[in-house]
Amino acid sequence: MKRLIDVATGRRKADLVLQNARIVNVHTHEVSDGSLAVDQGVIAGVGAYEGKKELDLNGAYLLPGLIDSHVHIESSLVSPEQFARLVVPRGTTTVIADPHEIANVAGLDGIRYMINAAKGVPLDVYFMLPSCVPSTSFENAGAELDAAALAELINDEAVLGLGEVMDYPSVAAGDAGILAKIALAAERNKPVDGHGPMIEGRGLNAYRAAGIQTDHECSTLDEMRDRLRLGMRILIREGSAARNLSTLIKGVGPHSARYCSFCTDDKQPEEILNEGHIDHNLRLAIENGLDPLTAIQMGTLNAAEGYGLPRKGALVPGFDADLIVVDNLRHLNVQQVYKKGVLVAKNQEALFPVNTPDIRSVSGSVNVAGLSEGSFRLKLKNDLVNVIHLHPGNLITEKAVRKVYVDDQGCFACRDKLDILKLAVIERHKASGNVGLGLVEGFQLKGGALATSIAHDSHNLIVIGDNDRDMLTAAEALISCGGGMCAVKEGTVLDTLPLPIAGLMSNESADQLNQRLGRINRIAYDALKVNPQVDPFMSLSFLALPVIPELKLTDMGLFDVTNFEFIDINAE
Amino acid sequence: MKRLIDVATGRRKADLVLQNARIVNVHTHEVSDGSLAVDQGVIAGVGAYEGKKELDLNGAYLLPGLIDSHVHIESSLVSPEQFARLVVPRGTTTVIADPHEIANVAGLDGIRYMINAAKGVPLDVYFMLPSCVPSTSFENAGAELDAAALAELINDEAVLGLGEVMDYPSVAAGDAGILAKIALAAERNKPVDGHGPMIEGRGLNAYRAAGIQTDHECSTLDEMRDRLRLGMRILIREGSAARNLSTLIKGVGPHSARYCSFCTDDKQPEEILNEGHIDHNLRLAIENGLDPLTAIQMGTLNAAEGYGLPRKGALVPGFDADLIVVDNLRHLNVQQVYKKGVLVAKNQEALFPVNTPDIRSVSGSVNVAGLSEGSFRLKLKNDLVNVIHLHPGNLITEKAVRKVYVDDQGCFACRDKLDILKLAVIERHKASGNVGLGLVEGFQLKGGALATSIAHDSHNLIVIGDNDRDMLTAAEALISCGGGMCAVKEGTVLDTLPLPIAGLMSNESADQLNQRLGRINRIAYDALKVNPQVDPFMSLSFLALPVIPELKLTDMGLFDVTNFEFIDINAE
Repeated sequence: MKRLIDVATGRRKADLVLQNARIVNVHTHEVSDGSLAVDQGVIAGVGAYEGKKELDLNGAYLLPGLIDSHVHIESSLVSPEQFARLVVPRGTTTVIADPHEIANVAGLDGIRYMINAAKGVPLDVYFMLPSCVPSTSFENAGAELDAAALAELINDEAVLGLGEVMDYPSVAAGDAGILAKIALAAERNKPVDGHGPMIEGRGLNAYRAAGIQTDHECSTLDEMRDRLRLGMRILIREGSAARNLSTLIKGVGPHSARYCSFCTDDKQPEEILNEGHIDHNLRLAIENGLDPLTAIQMGTLNAAEGYGLPRKGALVPGFDADLIVVDNLRHLNVQQVYKKGVLVAKNQEALFPVNTPDIRSVSGSVNVAGLSEGSFRLKLKNDLVNVIHLHPGNLITEKAVRKVYVDDQGCFACRDKLDILKLAVIERHKASGNVGLGLVEGFQLKGGALATSIAHDSHNLIVIGDNDRDMLTAAEALISCGGGMCAVKEGTVLDTLPLPIAGLMSNESADQLNQRLGRINRIAYDALKVNPQVDPFMSLSFLALPVIPELKLTDMGLFDVTNFEFIDINAE
Repeated sequence: MKRLIDVATGRRKADLVLQNARIVNVHTHEVSDGSLAVDQGVIAGVGAYEGKKELDLNGAYLLPGLIDSHVHIESSLVSPEQFARLVVPRGTTTVIADPHEIANVAGLDGIRYMINAAKGVPLDVYFMLPSCVPSTSFENAGAELDAAALAELINDEAVLGLGEVMDYPSVAAGDAGILAKIALAAERNKPVDGHGPMIEGRGLNAYRAAGIQTDHECSTLDEMRDRLRLGMRILIREGSAARNLSTLIKGVGPHSARYCSFCTDDKQPEEILNEGHIDHNLRLAIENGLDPLTAIQMGTLNAAEGYGLPRKGALVPGFDADLIVVDNLRHLNVQQVYKKGVLVAKNQEALFPVNTPDIRSVSGSVNVAGLSEGSFRLKLKNDLVNVIHLHPGNLITEKAVRKVYVDDQGCFACRDKLDILKLAVIERHKASGNVGLGLVEGFQLKGGALATSIAHDSHNLIVIGDNDRDMLTAAEALISCGGGMCAVKEGTVLDTLPLPIAGLMSNESADQLNQRLGRINRIAYDALKVNPQVDPFMSLSFLALPVIPELKLTDMGLFDVTNFEFIDINAE
């Protein structure tokens, strides 16, 4: 501190001075010409300074590093280290991660793996403890984390608070278990994230009264406005499956902007590589008419304030020197990224290595017993059924009633004429033998099956196909490789993408992983004729998520999320 | 929590529902018609609710209780309990208090007295630990509080952080003692208040780099802007001696408003009784053109955010039911005040009693030895002297050079023709015998002396007069009554106002105290002919404060605050 003050006052030369910058002030929305001094990783001053090392930015813009307010790193399909190599070059220097996915597979060991893996990379990864493991009592996950379990990690320095409270029916019911988890954070004045799509009126009052402070699940301006009125922070999401930004950005006004920040929630590596990470949210916001300085403030300071990070999100003396250099305030092309004063990415390339991580505690996670072709047979009482109707690009499904073909044994028969496929969710944590079966409309697929061990939120195996034999083959391929993704056509495994870390993530670089993912997706489209509007594995992975309306499938059966109850496959 | 959720959802009737209110939303700047439900002191919901008890507000406005971001309760001259009875009826339900004054007299015992005295009153009194006791090394106080001493209280639940860091030269010098105090708060992510008048450029960078987060000492828009650019919060002050609001309110813009709140800092009981407390700041802001909803937000939510009070400052489910009812949004006449859902004031009258407090730990604090008429004789080398030039209504004094009369013994001689009076600061904590002498212009006084044991910040005895005999008489009167204020004319004590709590505060009600204060002030004006532009005892009490420019007097001598050094009384 003494040394920092010596640098700030000019008595001592700074480690590094970035000269000739256009410095963006996210507090006052001003841009000033000048230099910024960094010493021992901390900003010492803005103004005129001399440094042991000086770099001329030639009038480029200097911004605080970007912050993702809510992300499941697991959705990038790569380990935290590889995730850092993926997002840091795009200007993200801090993320608020909810390790909900791996916790559902590997419990506290999974969270500890994430915390440890993120140490040593030039990305600040803070964690919100997953509040809903399992997400609901309507599915089987690999772990159950009650308040006592979470208490083991709540005081960890990387842990900021409690992650998205998805189980809003339990909150509204005043369930002791979920309230104990909320209290764990609230007693420490730590933030509690929400996840409350479509809650309104008294239900929303109850959710807020319980201490829920944020929501990233708004998809309408009405939802956004209702939550802002209750003093909740809105994390405007632009991910892979859920893209809310173009709608919600219209709700960012002069009074509400301070409570809005950006998040990706779930974003696949391809889209991060192609369009960017939080930098993409900013660009899109600006394209949609938001002024650039408000967009930058939302992507930096507002997130830092929301999560109680007093030394992040602004170019202020005493703050961490997490800095990005961009060409202009419209396109925001990230040219350089400094993490705690060290250049860690240049021209979209990461400049830091990644050690080979130890994944023993989270590998070998697929544990299934007694699967046979018969496990996939779907007995029907009649030909009128409830089907899950997909909306491409939206996590919300619709419950539709359809008339289908029934074979002579009284089982569902898949026919080309109807776009209705069989879906299976196979419990894969404790070999219980549970298999849930359902039907899906809008996916399209011919002559085969797709399977993945990424199936939100319990991450059982989920398989979709038009025949039971290929569905079994796809599931077996994943059992033998410890999880991942698989495409099968007419009895042949066309491609497998292994995800050895909890069946969720790979050790490979995002580039390599993405090439594999591109290949298996192309196979899904080309060889299996999946609906081009649908992201095959991403869509599949959300069909088991029983916290987003309207109809989903778990290993325990078909689940009506609106009424929070299992329903029969037959509609009458 | 379960019960609150039951009320929020409507399953259970609320303790109290305020019906037919115009509810002010400080998050969205909206006013909505509706009802607000309170249960067990907490807001359960806004909307349509039923209560065991229901009150019709007949369309009056319902606001969050007001917050004073920075106040020295001692300046009200009454104990914390009486202070609560004074400000709660004006709509203040939370204050951030810095017990700096009593700490300078009684150290940790003084702070503990304040914390304990404030328990049980319907006013949330949070404390910032005084960072500068003594304020400087250029005066003698009743205690020295280093970081180790403050550590005893930093984790107290009533303590929020570190109080105003006035000693900015030590900060700029990187002094280990002050940095250790800052670290005490910073390590716990607790706020650190500033006090940095006129600091700018690199000096301000250093101050901010050290972790200082707020300033309430801005008197110009330039100072305000410089601090806002560094992400500091501005506490816009309207007190008794310092009135910055009309100037600074012009600096509240759409981007900066969120970092602005209101404070009184030091405000005498008369002015609180006459014009109000934070409600007055709001009214004045609105009169100066600020829109009422921004003013209300600054007086509530912004203060709560600045001090990390997540359940204060807004009418949001789960927040404390600190509510005020006002007639309209322009005059803000406070009609009712609810503290944690209980009606505690109505029509500007407090509805709660005050117990007789135990003041033994903080009484009998005036300890002076060896005072005589000779103690007040001011030897001069020549007739050209440095005098303290008063600016009425401003804490900042000017260093002026004047020619004065010298008697035949080479001592200063007071003459009617010149408005230059003698000032003495007498060390009163440990009977050291220290007496500092100086000269003051602009005060005016004839044929007597005034004395007070309130003398910022060390609270030695300060005496002003035009003859040594009356100055001695005044000092002796205060020594015998344990501190307070005294007016002497031509050898006679005309009036004494005892302040038995550390020589700073009274047990009496603010009303009673104010009548006494009015009487002694009238005597000062009428019998002693003090300048009508000057508040006699208030002005006097700030003449010993060696942290506000430009020239001040301590028990150790005449102090040049600009250069931070003692100077000779003679100007050459």
